[in-house]
Amino acid sequence: MPGRGIFFEIQVFLQTLAMIHAIEMINNSTLLSGITLGYEIYDTCAEVTKAMGAAVRFLSKFNASKDEVEFKCNYSDYTPRVKAVIGASYSEVTMSVSRLLNLQLIPQVSQASSSEILSDKIRFPSFLRTVPSDLYQTRAMARLIHMSGWNWIGIIATDDDYGRFALESFGIQAMANNVCIAYKEMLPAFLSDSTINAKVNQAFEKIIEETRVNVIVVFMRQFHVMRLFQKAIERNINKVWIASDNWSAAVKVSMIPYIKRLGTVVGFAFKSGNISTFHDFLKTLHAKPMENNKFLNEYMLLLSACAHVKDQELNNCISNCTQESLMYKAGENNQTLKDDFLIANIEPGFIHSTMLAVQTIAYAIREQCQDRNCKNPFAFAPWELLEKLKKVKITDSEKEVHFDAKGDMNTGYDVLLWKEINGQIEITNMAEYDLQKDDFIFPDEEKKTDFFNLKRTITAIRQIWITAIYATTKLTGPL
Amino acid sequence: MPGRGIFFEIQVFLQTLAMIHAIEMINNSTLLSGITLGYEIYDTCAEVTKAMGAAVRFLSKFNASKDEVEFKCNYSDYTPRVKAVIGASYSEVTMSVSRLLNLQLIPQVSQASSSEILSDKIRFPSFLRTVPSDLYQTRAMARLIHMSGWNWIGIIATDDDYGRFALESFGIQAMANNVCIAYKEMLPAFLSDSTINAKVNQAFEKIIEETRVNVIVVFMRQFHVMRLFQKAIERNINKVWIASDNWSAAVKVSMIPYIKRLGTVVGFAFKSGNISTFHDFLKTLHAKPMENNKFLNEYMLLLSACAHVKDQELNNCISNCTQESLMYKAGENNQTLKDDFLIANIEPGFIHSTMLAVQTIAYAIREQCQDRNCKNPFAFAPWELLEKLKKVKITDSEKEVHFDAKGDMNTGYDVLLWKEINGQIEITNMAEYDLQKDDFIFPDEEKKTDFFNLKRTITAIRQIWITAIYATTKLTGPL
Repeated sequence: MPGRGIFFEIQVFLQTLAMIHAIEMINNSTLLSGITLGYEIYDTCAEVTKAMGAAVRFLSKFNASKDEVEFKCNYSDYTPRVKAVIGASYSEVTMSVSRLLNLQLIPQVSQASSSEILSDKIRFPSFLRTVPSDLYQTRAMARLIHMSGWNWIGIIATDDDYGRFALESFGIQAMANNVCIAYKEMLPAFLSDSTINAKVNQAFEKIIEETRVNVIVVFMRQFHVMRLFQKAIERNINKVWIASDNWSAAVKVSMIPYIKRLGTVVGFAFKSGNISTFHDFLKTLHAKPMENNKFLNEYMLLLSACAHVKDQELNNCISNCTQESLMYKAGENNQTLKDDFLIANIEPGFIHSTMLAVQTIAYAIREQCQDRNCKNPFAFAPWELLEKLKKVKITDSEKEVHFDAKGDMNTGYDVLLWKEINGQIEITNMAEYDLQKDDFIFPDEEKKTDFFNLKRTITAIRQIWITAIYATTKLTGPL
Repeated sequence: MPGRGIFFEIQVFLQTLAMIHAIEMINNSTLLSGITLGYEIYDTCAEVTKAMGAAVRFLSKFNASKDEVEFKCNYSDYTPRVKAVIGASYSEVTMSVSRLLNLQLIPQVSQASSSEILSDKIRFPSFLRTVPSDLYQTRAMARLIHMSGWNWIGIIATDDDYGRFALESFGIQAMANNVCIAYKEMLPAFLSDSTINAKVNQAFEKIIEETRVNVIVVFMRQFHVMRLFQKAIERNINKVWIASDNWSAAVKVSMIPYIKRLGTVVGFAFKSGNISTFHDFLKTLHAKPMENNKFLNEYMLLLSACAHVKDQELNNCISNCTQESLMYKAGENNQTLKDDFLIANIEPGFIHSTMLAVQTIAYAIREQCQDRNCKNPFAFAPWELLEKLKKVKITDSEKEVHFDAKGDMNTGYDVLLWKEINGQIEITNMAEYDLQKDDFIFPDEEKKTDFFNLKRTITAIRQIWITAIYATTKLTGPL
């Protein structure tokens, strides 16, 4: 498409590196003695069709990377080479891919897709995830909103299988907590949608018009958040923003110039764990063979193309780099890998969930291979591994974790507060949300104070409207 | 699954016959001189995974019916044998299949999937349909409800990609027409869902409990309607039921014993046309070669198994026949084909839309083959046909029809009234809904009277509630 830049998502690139790191750790350990895990990584470009093109290859009898795919239609007659799939990120992509992998019951473990419907095991029998269902996230959000005494809020979501289900689920949780939803705005999922500018403007006008609404829940893709926030800063909008998992820890968003004028950002991220080995991995990345890693090569090209900008501009430069400028700059890759930049951009929840995905699969393979010779790549079928995977139990940060009956991993959430420290916005860990107890846990008194201070942010406004809100709540019961 | 009966859907079987009939008409005409259309028909069993198994075959270089599929991953390098796909019925199945056919931009024309999101050409670029989007159906329903003076209604929908989008869309249309929704109930899409009985009971209790609600909009799969209605009849429920396209003309439902006690059924069906040639086709079906038609063979087995029942019980017997009884009865197929029974079960809107799907594809092929030798089955690629198909114009019942910019065919709806005639429920054509004018057109004064009589059905109840409803509407504005 002419004029359309490429978007290199540092955060997703880091997830691919985390997957490689976790696989290398397994291969360098004694866990699977005599067996080496192989892998291929495909870029979905966040597009279903692109992802389906890759997923079709996974059904093949042979290596997925061959240019010709051959498979038998009688699925009980053969064993595909690929035994498990990790991904995708966006729920809509994950769902479509899952429909295809069902044909061979190839286990698919997503590190990020949290849409509630993916818990439906009639529709998605071979799908698992190392993160909880959004059912819990919307409950946690409604609880935070209720505890902070806010009860008149707006929602903006991306119009896809993530945003729609989240909106629906949040609506139910909000009602249960006597939180009223003043407006719901949906933005088209694709930048190529011709209505996107009009819809962003419409959402924006709603925010300005509804002056009584001071808290906005945002279930959006990162690039939508970027657009909306840049506009909001220009117009001096000041609100409380509740961030969903997919952007709550987005360093790129937190570095938008003058972001602190936007008000308060508080969000939910998938529970992180100890990812220190990944930091070490990034620091030694330059010493690794990289000719086969296309993503790493692309990152290096981007670093070259952005060699002229200051460190704090790097993220922005990489995001806006066009294919043309990359072509031009190719060859000049005498840069370092800027591991400090990579480490600064880590969203720990996603790195942790990616590593968990690899680990659960490795442990399931160990279980599977106890009584057969897995040096033969066709020693077991994907559906057999799926059965083992469902029962796997591993230890993570001294806690045992496993998939529940719906294939979800109920690790919980970190509650993040975007805080101004020395003039810069830093994304800080304010609390943990415990799914089982439906409650917030604070590491110390300072954090607890931060949490309860949220309440004060808009108390004055709340008091003016409280009567009208309760009246509405009462009358709209049957709706 | 043990104990799970097979469901032979007469109505879907009739759609496969309509497709065969339309193809034979084309092949026996001079439209495509020198070219014969071939076809294969796969049973999706209303399941996405089953449908995906078939759809993967369509990507193959060779005949889809071969047991081994081979295709190149570079999609510009080869031409698959299949040039166009008709189906599926359920929107959820259609959407998943479409995601796969996108890989080769194979044109897919559905005769029944009406979910609004299928109009999204970024997500579904190779999808077209010979029926309108549910956007219009929900608008027509809200208009009928408003014109009849009803403004306090309930909705029950199947929890799938058809029901969810319809619910959302109807909610918007209802609000625009000052119609309030007292409750929304969703039923699981699959009988194998362990919660289905509890959910049907819950919906049912809601109907009983909300005595003020006398009009219920039903966006459900036929087997759900069967279940709910059988229960409702036992409990003497009497309501106005607004039927969506997929069950408004269901003869099987209209023949439930004591159905007339349920109250009034008024529904929307895709606009029908002249399908008299299909009646003739059914009458001569016995004289056709049928060894390759598995569905016809299955139908004959069912007729044998049900040879002992009376004609009015036949539908029920066929629906409840288990695989076991079929095995047992195999071989005894000395029956006629009961074409009168088949004709009585026709749902004209679906037959018409199926025939339109074949015709549009045939005309697009003619267009495509004007300047090349299409005796070579690889003379053109599916994506080329898609471009022709988008522009095809054909004449249907003296009107020109074509796909709009979103790939939808805006033929309109027939408004059906289930009427007691000589003690039997008959499904009658009461009006036509014109999409462009957003208005109802009546063939004669009697039908018009029928329409305006709907209003009287529950006037007394409406008057009691009208004040409360308006108050609610006013106060809930910002919701």
